[in-house]
Amino acid sequence: MAGRHVQVSVIGSGAAHEAVALEVGRLLAERGCVVVTGGLDEVMAWALRGAREAGGTTLAILPGETHAAANEWADQVVVTGIGHARNLAVAASGDAVIAVGGSWGTLAEIGFAMRLGRPVVVLEGGPAVEGVPRAATPADAVDLALAAIAR
Amino acid sequence: MAGRHVQVSVIGSGAAHEAVALEVGRLLAERGCVVVTGGLDEVMAWALRGAREAGGTTLAILPGETHAAANEWADQVVVTGIGHARNLAVAASGDAVIAVGGSWGTLAEIGFAMRLGRPVVVLEGGPAVEGVPRAATPADAVDLALAAIAR
Amino acid sequence: MAGRHVQVSVIGSGAAHEAVALEVGRLLAERGCVVVTGGLDEVMAWALRGAREAGGTTLAILPGETHAAANEWADQVVVTGIGHARNLAVAASGDAVIAVGGSWGTLAEIGFAMRLGRPVVVLEGGPAVEGVPRAATPADAVDLALAAIAR
Amino acid sequence: MAGRHVQVSVIGSGAAHEAVALEVGRLLAERGCVVVTGGLDEVMAWALRGAREAGGTTLAILPGETHAAANEWADQVVVTGIGHARNLAVAASGDAVIAVGGSWGTLAEIGFAMRLGRPVVVLEGGPAVEGVPRAATPADAVDLALAAIAR
Repeated sequence: MAGRHVQVSVIGSGAAHEAVALEVGRLLAERGCVVVTGGLDEVMAWALRGAREAGGTTLAILPGETHAAANEWADQVVVTGIGHARNLAVAASGDAVIAVGGSWGTLAEIGFAMRLGRPVVVLEGGPAVEGVPRAATPADAVDLALAAIAR
Repeated sequence: MAGRHVQVSVIGSGAAHEAVALEVGRLLAERGCVVVTGGLDEVMAWALRGAREAGGTTLAILPGETHAAANEWADQVVVTGIGHARNLAVAASGDAVIAVGGSWGTLAEIGFAMRLGRPVVVLEGGPAVEGVPRAATPADAVDLALAAIAR
Repeated sequence: MAGRHVQVSVIGSGAAHEAVALEVGRLLAERGCVVVTGGLDEVMAWALRGAREAGGTTLAILPGETHAAANEWADQVVVTGIGHARNLAVAASGDAVIAVGGSWGTLAEIGFAMRLGRPVVVLEGGPAVEGVPRAATPADAVDLALAAIAR
Repeated sequence: MAGRHVQVSVIGSGAAHEAVALEVGRLLAERGCVVVTGGLDEVMAWALRGAREAGGTTLAILPGETHAAANEWADQVVVTGIGHARNLAVAASGDAVIAVGGSWGTLAEIGFAMRLGRPVVVLEGGPAVEGVPRAATPADAVDLALAAIAR
């Protein structure tokens, strides 16, 4: 990975999880990671906001056909045009993946990330999936994810 | 749905589940359904085989770029070229979805199917996902899936 | 290709080309081919109608997330959910591709078909693309396409 | 587009066009644009190199399932996993698109870009497509593309 920064995808949804997403984004940026999300609202927005406010770089991978749908904390915007199939790109673009809250789309992303061998950490409150490590706090999730990449 | 047959996608993997997949495919064909799978081996092959042997119609939705990867029980072959993202097409193309065994890719398909509002039934032995109905036998799974479509 | 019928994708658009699309679909069905299109209106509908009325089998590969968008002449319906990227699946699913009229989306499909080594024939009235064979009539287009598959 | 930089996708292929791609990338970076490509070799690499060497930001949108395929001048790397369908994402992610050389995949990208209303400029040596503006030099191509975005 010489020449590029480690990228971590933050997946999930739910307004109740925005503060946690903000913290995850901030911690990742402080550790020098590019933060990647699906680029829309809730968890996808707050993780990018946390990263941006900590001086990090953010990447939004959108499902639709226009740049305009990206939240305001996205530095680079990828317009995939492939709808929910962009969940594969979000999962695959992370050197690791952290789930914050989330529902069915998040489950699809966890499935893809595990299928492709990306380390996944689910924060408490996210989907319970057998065989996927969980973390109690944003700091623990970030530590686990970065340790898994380093291995 | 006038003018076309009900389509049911059978998802999953694992050689241990082939006999069950055969039975699910057979039952679906006997009920007049087109059986859809990802078109490769194991569960994807045996569900199509069961349907074909019962006189049904089968549809394979492949991840790669050639028709040649399709198993021999596929009547129509869709070559998507989009890799694992074809899991979205498999899930979406079913009026309902039945999971037989399976691993991470199956989890992605269940996530997509639920996200798109397709009824999903997981046969015992398949992934445990909170909020997704389970069935103990192929006959129960087919009954549940077709009843959900009828609603 | 033992065990399945030859599949020919008919691509293109434009109400002015519907009668030609109908004829292409009819001729392909009479030659025993499954006819594949993008499943929506105009050329995509009339090619399937021609095939259906000649007793053939038809396959629609849709861009959206519901079966309902398929035209009434589609036997099997693939719901890809990937928007314009389904053009790749339409191009790749044909053992050969025939273009009838068409605009920018058709150009993308011709590009993909040529990239994947599928024989392409453009009927007069379709996009002029250097290096892609043209035909003056539906019968010539079908002859050329099937001859190319046989080679 | 407040809050993000203008993004221009450079598409095409061919070792003969690398020097031109380098110049296009450099000029775009000097004008403050993020340069987007498909992230592999030839034109995709040299456009990113030109941008990077001019102090710009670069974005690679890969077809495969790993980050490792990205050329060394990619700052952010999107791993789509969707094969040639990532051409849609490359075309759509540009506020404008410039073609340098190229073959069938480039034709697909031009088709998608035009379909989605992105301004496209083809440099001499690239595919001749009726209705798509051409430019004789990198400077002219960049001027045309940025003027079209401004409108």
